[in-house]
Amino acid sequence: MTDAAATNLDEIMLCFMHWHGIATFLRTPYRPDLADTDIGLIGVPSSSGNPVGRMQHLGPRAVRNRSAGNQKMIRSLEIDPFALVRISDLGDVPLPRILHPDMTADDIEAFYARVFAAGVTPVSVGGDHSITPPILRARHKHVGAPVGLIHFDSHTDAYTPSAATRNTAAGFRTAAEDGIIDPKRTVQIGIRGSVPSLEMDAWAFENLGRVITTDEFVEIGETRVIEEIRRVVGDGPAYLTFDLDVLDPAYAPGVAVPELNGLTTREIFRVVHGLRGLNLVGADIVCFCPPLDNAAEITAIAASELLLSFTCLIADRLATAGKG
Amino acid sequence: MTDAAATNLDEIMLCFMHWHGIATFLRTPYRPDLADTDIGLIGVPSSSGNPVGRMQHLGPRAVRNRSAGNQKMIRSLEIDPFALVRISDLGDVPLPRILHPDMTADDIEAFYARVFAAGVTPVSVGGDHSITPPILRARHKHVGAPVGLIHFDSHTDAYTPSAATRNTAAGFRTAAEDGIIDPKRTVQIGIRGSVPSLEMDAWAFENLGRVITTDEFVEIGETRVIEEIRRVVGDGPAYLTFDLDVLDPAYAPGVAVPELNGLTTREIFRVVHGLRGLNLVGADIVCFCPPLDNAAEITAIAASELLLSFTCLIADRLATAGKG
Amino acid sequence: MTDAAATNLDEIMLCFMHWHGIATFLRTPYRPDLADTDIGLIGVPSSSGNPVGRMQHLGPRAVRNRSAGNQKMIRSLEIDPFALVRISDLGDVPLPRILHPDMTADDIEAFYARVFAAGVTPVSVGGDHSITPPILRARHKHVGAPVGLIHFDSHTDAYTPSAATRNTAAGFRTAAEDGIIDPKRTVQIGIRGSVPSLEMDAWAFENLGRVITTDEFVEIGETRVIEEIRRVVGDGPAYLTFDLDVLDPAYAPGVAVPELNGLTTREIFRVVHGLRGLNLVGADIVCFCPPLDNAAEITAIAASELLLSFTCLIADRLATAGKG
Amino acid sequence: MTDAAATNLDEIMLCFMHWHGIATFLRTPYRPDLADTDIGLIGVPSSSGNPVGRMQHLGPRAVRNRSAGNQKMIRSLEIDPFALVRISDLGDVPLPRILHPDMTADDIEAFYARVFAAGVTPVSVGGDHSITPPILRARHKHVGAPVGLIHFDSHTDAYTPSAATRNTAAGFRTAAEDGIIDPKRTVQIGIRGSVPSLEMDAWAFENLGRVITTDEFVEIGETRVIEEIRRVVGDGPAYLTFDLDVLDPAYAPGVAVPELNGLTTREIFRVVHGLRGLNLVGADIVCFCPPLDNAAEITAIAASELLLSFTCLIADRLATAGKG
Amino acid sequence: MTDAAATNLDEIMLCFMHWHGIATFLRTPYRPDLADTDIGLIGVPSSSGNPVGRMQHLGPRAVRNRSAGNQKMIRSLEIDPFALVRISDLGDVPLPRILHPDMTADDIEAFYARVFAAGVTPVSVGGDHSITPPILRARHKHVGAPVGLIHFDSHTDAYTPSAATRNTAAGFRTAAEDGIIDPKRTVQIGIRGSVPSLEMDAWAFENLGRVITTDEFVEIGETRVIEEIRRVVGDGPAYLTFDLDVLDPAYAPGVAVPELNGLTTREIFRVVHGLRGLNLVGADIVCFCPPLDNAAEITAIAASELLLSFTCLIADRLATAGKG
Amino acid sequence: MTDAAATNLDEIMLCFMHWHGIATFLRTPYRPDLADTDIGLIGVPSSSGNPVGRMQHLGPRAVRNRSAGNQKMIRSLEIDPFALVRISDLGDVPLPRILHPDMTADDIEAFYARVFAAGVTPVSVGGDHSITPPILRARHKHVGAPVGLIHFDSHTDAYTPSAATRNTAAGFRTAAEDGIIDPKRTVQIGIRGSVPSLEMDAWAFENLGRVITTDEFVEIGETRVIEEIRRVVGDGPAYLTFDLDVLDPAYAPGVAVPELNGLTTREIFRVVHGLRGLNLVGADIVCFCPPLDNAAEITAIAASELLLSFTCLIADRLATAGKG
Repeated sequence: MTDAAATNLDEIMLCFMHWHGIATFLRTPYRPDLADTDIGLIGVPSSSGNPVGRMQHLGPRAVRNRSAGNQKMIRSLEIDPFALVRISDLGDVPLPRILHPDMTADDIEAFYARVFAAGVTPVSVGGDHSITPPILRARHKHVGAPVGLIHFDSHTDAYTPSAATRNTAAGFRTAAEDGIIDPKRTVQIGIRGSVPSLEMDAWAFENLGRVITTDEFVEIGETRVIEEIRRVVGDGPAYLTFDLDVLDPAYAPGVAVPELNGLTTREIFRVVHGLRGLNLVGADIVCFCPPLDNAAEITAIAASELLLSFTCLIADRLATAGKG
Repeated sequence: MTDAAATNLDEIMLCFMHWHGIATFLRTPYRPDLADTDIGLIGVPSSSGNPVGRMQHLGPRAVRNRSAGNQKMIRSLEIDPFALVRISDLGDVPLPRILHPDMTADDIEAFYARVFAAGVTPVSVGGDHSITPPILRARHKHVGAPVGLIHFDSHTDAYTPSAATRNTAAGFRTAAEDGIIDPKRTVQIGIRGSVPSLEMDAWAFENLGRVITTDEFVEIGETRVIEEIRRVVGDGPAYLTFDLDVLDPAYAPGVAVPELNGLTTREIFRVVHGLRGLNLVGADIVCFCPPLDNAAEITAIAASELLLSFTCLIADRLATAGKG
Repeated sequence: MTDAAATNLDEIMLCFMHWHGIATFLRTPYRPDLADTDIGLIGVPSSSGNPVGRMQHLGPRAVRNRSAGNQKMIRSLEIDPFALVRISDLGDVPLPRILHPDMTADDIEAFYARVFAAGVTPVSVGGDHSITPPILRARHKHVGAPVGLIHFDSHTDAYTPSAATRNTAAGFRTAAEDGIIDPKRTVQIGIRGSVPSLEMDAWAFENLGRVITTDEFVEIGETRVIEEIRRVVGDGPAYLTFDLDVLDPAYAPGVAVPELNGLTTREIFRVVHGLRGLNLVGADIVCFCPPLDNAAEITAIAASELLLSFTCLIADRLATAGKG
Repeated sequence: MTDAAATNLDEIMLCFMHWHGIATFLRTPYRPDLADTDIGLIGVPSSSGNPVGRMQHLGPRAVRNRSAGNQKMIRSLEIDPFALVRISDLGDVPLPRILHPDMTADDIEAFYARVFAAGVTPVSVGGDHSITPPILRARHKHVGAPVGLIHFDSHTDAYTPSAATRNTAAGFRTAAEDGIIDPKRTVQIGIRGSVPSLEMDAWAFENLGRVITTDEFVEIGETRVIEEIRRVVGDGPAYLTFDLDVLDPAYAPGVAVPELNGLTTREIFRVVHGLRGLNLVGADIVCFCPPLDNAAEITAIAASELLLSFTCLIADRLATAGKG
Repeated sequence: MTDAAATNLDEIMLCFMHWHGIATFLRTPYRPDLADTDIGLIGVPSSSGNPVGRMQHLGPRAVRNRSAGNQKMIRSLEIDPFALVRISDLGDVPLPRILHPDMTADDIEAFYARVFAAGVTPVSVGGDHSITPPILRARHKHVGAPVGLIHFDSHTDAYTPSAATRNTAAGFRTAAEDGIIDPKRTVQIGIRGSVPSLEMDAWAFENLGRVITTDEFVEIGETRVIEEIRRVVGDGPAYLTFDLDVLDPAYAPGVAVPELNGLTTREIFRVVHGLRGLNLVGADIVCFCPPLDNAAEITAIAASELLLSFTCLIADRLATAGKG
Repeated sequence: MTDAAATNLDEIMLCFMHWHGIATFLRTPYRPDLADTDIGLIGVPSSSGNPVGRMQHLGPRAVRNRSAGNQKMIRSLEIDPFALVRISDLGDVPLPRILHPDMTADDIEAFYARVFAAGVTPVSVGGDHSITPPILRARHKHVGAPVGLIHFDSHTDAYTPSAATRNTAAGFRTAAEDGIIDPKRTVQIGIRGSVPSLEMDAWAFENLGRVITTDEFVEIGETRVIEEIRRVVGDGPAYLTFDLDVLDPAYAPGVAVPELNGLTTREIFRVVHGLRGLNLVGADIVCFCPPLDNAAEITAIAASELLLSFTCLIADRLATAGKG
């Protein structure tokens, strides 16, 4: 091989200078008008759906700051997403009515209606988990059909609504009942933790396509987990939602509801990289609470690497589909 | 003098062992049924009224933890409140509908309706500043008349409501328009900071009895500030609301919206102690965000000392009025 | 299944609001008089037995604060301890003479004499490891026979006493020599770390029933470890003492003497849950130094989950034995 | 007055949501091409001139993040800079050769040559104090005359160069000797601290127009300090350089070389606001080390408020001079 | 003046590189054998006398680390102590029996017996306040007469002993009763804070030469405070003991028992520097809890600057007395 | 066995009191003159070769502080290095010209020329990775032949130089081209992470003896990794350089460039201990950024344990070779 420019130290170092310049997701151009964009990276700084943590609105900024050093490629995937498709930072969803969970959900839905209408595939950074249903609702209105769901989380987030609002961080039962997601094409990965009642997650276990607990994940191994995910969602369109608390808090301490006995980054990234080729119509990363991260910002780094990974998977799919 | 028990080191030390045992406010007995109580110390763990900070719901716990070492007397006031009246920790206001600001305000109001009906004088720990109007609303319904207000803050918190809710952390204009507080018997102390618009606080300056900015406070000095407060609120019933951000962030870093160029604890405590004898019908301390405090917990210590001070002032008043 | 109350989001969320209200262990009722109690949760805020760390007296408060969100059930065990037996927070052992290690040990012993006399099974939160021998001494005086010991730790804590006091954090050799524990029914799990002398732990290896080092634990696996523990302690009464430093510091950083190359929570909890059915007469969790924990409080969370686990195991045993 | 839009809570709150969206200095538009700009806000993320601290390159990002909530007006000055002139964020000076202090100085100088050539007045955020001489050198080459200097600092930063480089964080003696600044029109404010040798600052005291130590500042008061500054720099062009360590570390802990016994924000901001009307041709804020700041980010807040203040002073001057 | 070596940047910078090399107090030579020493800097890493904080044993290391950048002169005093007398770091007092407060006090006393016998003047860094009486006891045995005491503190530390030990952090009443200090030549400066009983400090007020509360300090000012100290201790030998909690926690957060409304560094250092010429026979700095300090280490910096100040005062005295 | 002194608690505890006394590496004697030394422990406080992190100069101090509690033996190796050879702390390399990377490299090289000339085997603590090439250059000039290299790292650090300097933290390609290391006897362990270009590490993969990525490490296991290292470096002299970022950031957060999906301490220490008997001519530990460590200092603890391990391996080799 030749001593190409890309192996020069100065160019390499620039990619690690995360603190330099204006911070955008993966140092992509900021295009609030959605122009020239195949994949849109979007911040949803909302903490209006979860009373726990309540620092999730600080997530997008923290991921921008750190992921500004992540305009990179994933070694094992050998995908350069920035060469394949046009990737932009679309900014944050404006949330002036953040104090009201229902109005906030409406604001999120309205923003994504524009995104889907423009033919942009969104990869979003929350915010708490209440941001996902309105995104999916916007897609549902655009497409008219439910979507499959790949849901990494230590909690099923599938309960009856709160007395205060339907738009909570645990809205996947409601999303299924509303026909927004297809429960049979929904797979949850990483469920664990002690429970307020032993029946708590019964709905999910009985109604979803597949629930892989952390215990089962460890027992069957990454390869089988990947196979199960592929089997459940199949070739149809699927959305990927990733709650950072699926990782063990030793690996991602900065989350709202840390659950012990979790998965390592090694286990999780193997599965994530195993999803190449699926028909992903969007993805999000939720639950990051920056003030609970450690000084080395390892949760921000994990979120940034996931952001890059999801972008790679989708870019690869779009390029393969001739859309890049 | 005699070598009384209270000067023995072991007894003294116990008062400093803030970490010992079950933490209640000022280590008072926990009486959720409101029995045997003249002054009720109450936590209001709400962050539903302010999008900034959003860690204020963690305030009551943090103040209980630290104030458990504050069952003390204030040297200069020479008031022993625990000998004068019956002081209890009434627990936290239950806030199951915390995601909805209006429902939360209703829950707060309902709790304080019980408190006032029981003849208990409340001293509350927030929570963001949205907790104060529902407390005053409960009192208003109980008494049928507006109350005077002594309002320490770096912000006037007197604006037209948010589109999302009337129950925000800036509800004092609304409270005045609703007849809950008497604007002419309202005094604000410590207003400062840069402003989004130069007209921002015009309503407060034009409609309230007195607004003493931090600049004016420093210019006229503590004695004059005390005189002004006494002049404005007079002998009638008055409520004291204390936003910790009136203190300079060097002295109270753990607040939602720190404003530079603030007041020192020395300046503030002189004024607070100068309010002895006023007809205080309740008090609160708001805006504490424990994760933003420093390792030495100096904001928690300031809040605890304010809690003790307000309790002393009210105990002294109740005892003088023959109610202790 | 039915859409039972316990799967409603509001009820679920309440279990996660660890900051709400007065903090007791696992949010159990505070019963300092020991009434109506089968299992008594007790804080022992002592740091008088270990010169390292010396923040262990802050442990009980920190575990109360976090475990207030842990009134839960363990998914895999399917035990609801709160339905089986009466569980109370008995408060902290009063330690006015904390500066003197021997007097403090006497104070602890006297407290537990009352506990055992009342027929209450104690689950304690330290404090450093010097709290365990006086608890066992109280039991020994009550019962008149030595007890088996299941001892999770990275250190054997079995040395000749300090010149300063016999009541140190390393008192298990002394406890064996005093006939308080039965060395042949004692098993240590997790021993590791570099050593001041290669003979340091010889006494333990030569005299105890079994010492399973971390290296051996990893080699033989959790199932074999469980079998070994069961084999050594048998059906007789056994006490479980858990030093948090048996966990790797990546999983439990907030300990006095972190030892690298430790066990993961996954490895440890599998073993702990495998102890179901043993005749546990008490348990404790020691060595937590809250100021060394990280912002996400993962050590406090681990301690809280262990507290719940030990309570489940004992509740199950008591219920099975017809005592719940 | 009318109930203008700018006193509506939602609009007010937006100004406090510092975490929202893409962070630029004072939330100004990002214009890397220098178009449509009167005042250019510039980051200079360099720590190549000071071996102490060495986190100053993280300063611009941290000030952008926090000052995104500072698009405001200063109450006492009654200046709305955003209405007076066109203010842009020009991004960071590219510093690919950051490891070499001399090459880095050249890169800084080249950037500012473009800025001055475009008629833009720069307000910069460092970086360590080595960023100031190359800025002034660029101006000198553009204008051909030395500039007056208003220098807030606890150190004179006026020494003979290091053996390693002339481009250190203490380059004001060199700048004077090179004719870039006019020492007679240079005033230093806030000098203090213990010294390696009593002669250390002799050059500054003997050669500069005026050195006001912190002791003298306190003795003569803010009004006299303002008068002295005005007297020394007169009506001619002057540059303002502000090392955050002039503030007491209680008020600005996040600096490379904290010096005790410093000035309060109250003292400093009174002087800064007293400089209105001076012919300021640029300004900078240096020495911020974000990892040394506290959780409440009070140093970032101080830097943001200084950035706003300097922008106001210059906007006012430009508008008065008919350039806005 | 000439461009002397000591104004060269490289030499100046070396004094600020506190992290470089082996850390000793003020970067003085380590001489555990007490040879060639006029002033001996000594660490006393004990936390055996105070149940609060219990991290004071970490103080000497933290002060060594930071004061390694403080081999300097005090600008206003114009004293170069390193040129006047021989100053050494004597290491830490060995405290193998740290768990026992009385044995520890004996170990401290024995160490200082050697120090005084060698004619060395000690300046010590604690450790909690229990280190001072054994130091004074050693001196008393050496000299045979009580000493005057200049005691900076927010607490009088003068109570009847604990049930657990006489060797507590509050031993000045005992020290007076034992004839070790002369109560009439004792002055306390900075007493304040809320109190467990109003009589708590009666003994100190009635029996000591002078107690200047913080309130009185602020009222009468630094000049009068200096005069009062000089009047009380006179020309006779006096020992200076400095509890860092006399400083306001905004200026020195890293202390065991922070008391609000304290003194600023500006106020304190003016008084300290005003003690020049007094017959100081030793000094100490106590109560530093490094884990409670902030990231900028402002408490460590304050302790280091006090260490330098006390060393200057004593060096000046020794040199004047012809002993340097 | 006998109850030897070394199993007495007081002696054991002393080894854990890391905060006591003057801190040197592994509490070895400080011998800046290189006398009586077989293994010299050396600090190289440089951050002049890497723009990322830039706190690596704080590493030696932090490792001294913590490793002062590590004068121990490694359980599994059963090596007591302190009994085998003479081990000293040689202090830090003086780096007065730290601002200039090339001059700093010269200063490092000159220091190690003295070390090798004295027949001392160096074990060094950085500093960033730019410290290794000058150490090897000094050895090369002393010996006249290239050395084998065992290189633990998540990055290959083998690129063409920066425009600013050849002396960067990524100088292993240059070192090979200069004939200082033998590329065919070089093995890299742990390479991973996302990359700025897919060709970035091509030079290393094509030119070095062996590159074992983290993925391959996990696949083949510790035993095979040890075999591969032994195969590549053989019996000839080899230098061991350990970048702490080879560890997963959950286990070593305090590094300049954390890379997810890393190796656990369990995996790494097994390999390190498997290197016994190799002909190690020196070793270093680099990349530690103390301000990014967590409160429990787990990175400092890991670095200390590695320092002990490398010292054991070399002491064993020297003793076997008859040099101890």
